[in-house]
Amino acid sequence: MHFTKVHGLGNDFIIVNVGIGEGFPDDWSSLGREMCDRKFGIGADGLVLLLDSGQADVRMKIVNSDGSEAEMCGNAIRCVAKYLYERGIVKKEEIRVETLAGIMVPKIIQNNGVVEAVRVDMGAPRLERELIPMVGPVGQVINEALEVNGQIINITAVSMGNPHCVIFVPDLKDIPFSQLGPIIEAHPAFPRKTNVEFVQVLSPTEVRMLVWERGAGPTMACGTGACAVGVAGVLNGLTDKAVTVHLPGGPLYIEWDGVGSVYMTGPATEVFNGEYTVYKH
Amino acid sequence: MHFTKVHGLGNDFIIVNVGIGEGFPDDWSSLGREMCDRKFGIGADGLVLLLDSGQADVRMKIVNSDGSEAEMCGNAIRCVAKYLYERGIVKKEEIRVETLAGIMVPKIIQNNGVVEAVRVDMGAPRLERELIPMVGPVGQVINEALEVNGQIINITAVSMGNPHCVIFVPDLKDIPFSQLGPIIEAHPAFPRKTNVEFVQVLSPTEVRMLVWERGAGPTMACGTGACAVGVAGVLNGLTDKAVTVHLPGGPLYIEWDGVGSVYMTGPATEVFNGEYTVYKH
Repeated sequence: MHFTKVHGLGNDFIIVNVGIGEGFPDDWSSLGREMCDRKFGIGADGLVLLLDSGQADVRMKIVNSDGSEAEMCGNAIRCVAKYLYERGIVKKEEIRVETLAGIMVPKIIQNNGVVEAVRVDMGAPRLERELIPMVGPVGQVINEALEVNGQIINITAVSMGNPHCVIFVPDLKDIPFSQLGPIIEAHPAFPRKTNVEFVQVLSPTEVRMLVWERGAGPTMACGTGACAVGVAGVLNGLTDKAVTVHLPGGPLYIEWDGVGSVYMTGPATEVFNGEYTVYKH
Repeated sequence: MHFTKVHGLGNDFIIVNVGIGEGFPDDWSSLGREMCDRKFGIGADGLVLLLDSGQADVRMKIVNSDGSEAEMCGNAIRCVAKYLYERGIVKKEEIRVETLAGIMVPKIIQNNGVVEAVRVDMGAPRLERELIPMVGPVGQVINEALEVNGQIINITAVSMGNPHCVIFVPDLKDIPFSQLGPIIEAHPAFPRKTNVEFVQVLSPTEVRMLVWERGAGPTMACGTGACAVGVAGVLNGLTDKAVTVHLPGGPLYIEWDGVGSVYMTGPATEVFNGEYTVYKH
């Protein structure tokens, strides 16, 4: 089986272009686990299957390394867009991709046919407390005090389809990240738990962040987290409507006009192509 | 650059058949780090380069994922032997491989041309205390009491070129492995630190072991550790001269006649072939 290994800011995937009518195993879940295994398989955060779509240019199915299915992933879809464009499989710069979260339209930013970045409409943020979801009175959660282990921390809550708790700090180096991350993730104020972002503002157009992902802990890049940080920066008057967010895996460029969709622009990298033998199927 | 991804009991490597005269970057160290990176590269414990040898069938150079060079690796050499034999690069069942630890001669165990296992002469164990090295009086260290945090643990010390501290226990489930491993690794009795093996004897021909590798912590498979366990089993009269050692990554078959070389027989698995672009060189 031919595959391509890609990553977006270190969030890495195995892309398999399945298409239609190919003899591909039905058991996506166990195949995903097998291929994503970093010691016995190819190794990746997820297996991305490209399938024919009745509604869009392509259907993207993401199998996580634990065999579960992901609705959408901003890092994966950038890689998919680059893959389809550079191979001439889709010959236009706005590519319609069917996902479990609806049809997404990543846009290729290219220079002489080489994809330099991909811009993705990540949808509008949801800011009402009950939509985060978060317990408490009606309204938005902007620079609100939260008690964490007897200490007061000011937070801004943003949902990008998943919950984010954004915390602006003077200096990331002074934050007990690994200690606070899991405590805030499971804080009773967030009934479905939350992702946690610590953010240091470098200038109105540049911030640095660390992310503690819900269920995953520290990761190198969280696309929805970077979007939430861009939104929270505007809501708190700390950043402009376009901001570069530096994550451990690299930078993402986030745009939000204060009303509509959040746009995320970032890199996609192809690492190698390979041929994998499906032994067990 | 064409490569083949392999593993021996989950200890995984990228094999590149460099040969002679090929335009291959000189900077093995940084290339190894780049290719072995599990998120941004191919991902492996090591990069194995196959080079021409004036003295043997092939020269094997192992670059660890941190860019350092390894002298020898029992799991890697099994994979190399299988790779050379199945591709017809070396057309005999005993293959001479030049390594930094001398010329090794892995032997192919095949069935209709398919490699089922590879048997490797791992050299004779060194048992004198000062050769482990371990502090204390002249002699061998067999079932000797060692004080660890105020508790007495009986150990057998074996050098297979590197130091091993073998501890037989009634049941691996009852061992505080992650707690004892690092303490014994750095115990003052071992001036160059030590690998630590906890072993449960299932029968005279079958044991189960957990290994805490010096400088690496818990790993799925340590070939020299399995050899040390086979030797320690014979020295303590607990196992026969041939024993199957079950490691977390799978089984190894260890033979020792009580005098000469230790022979290790185990599997080698080819996972996939790929094409990698060297961007930075």
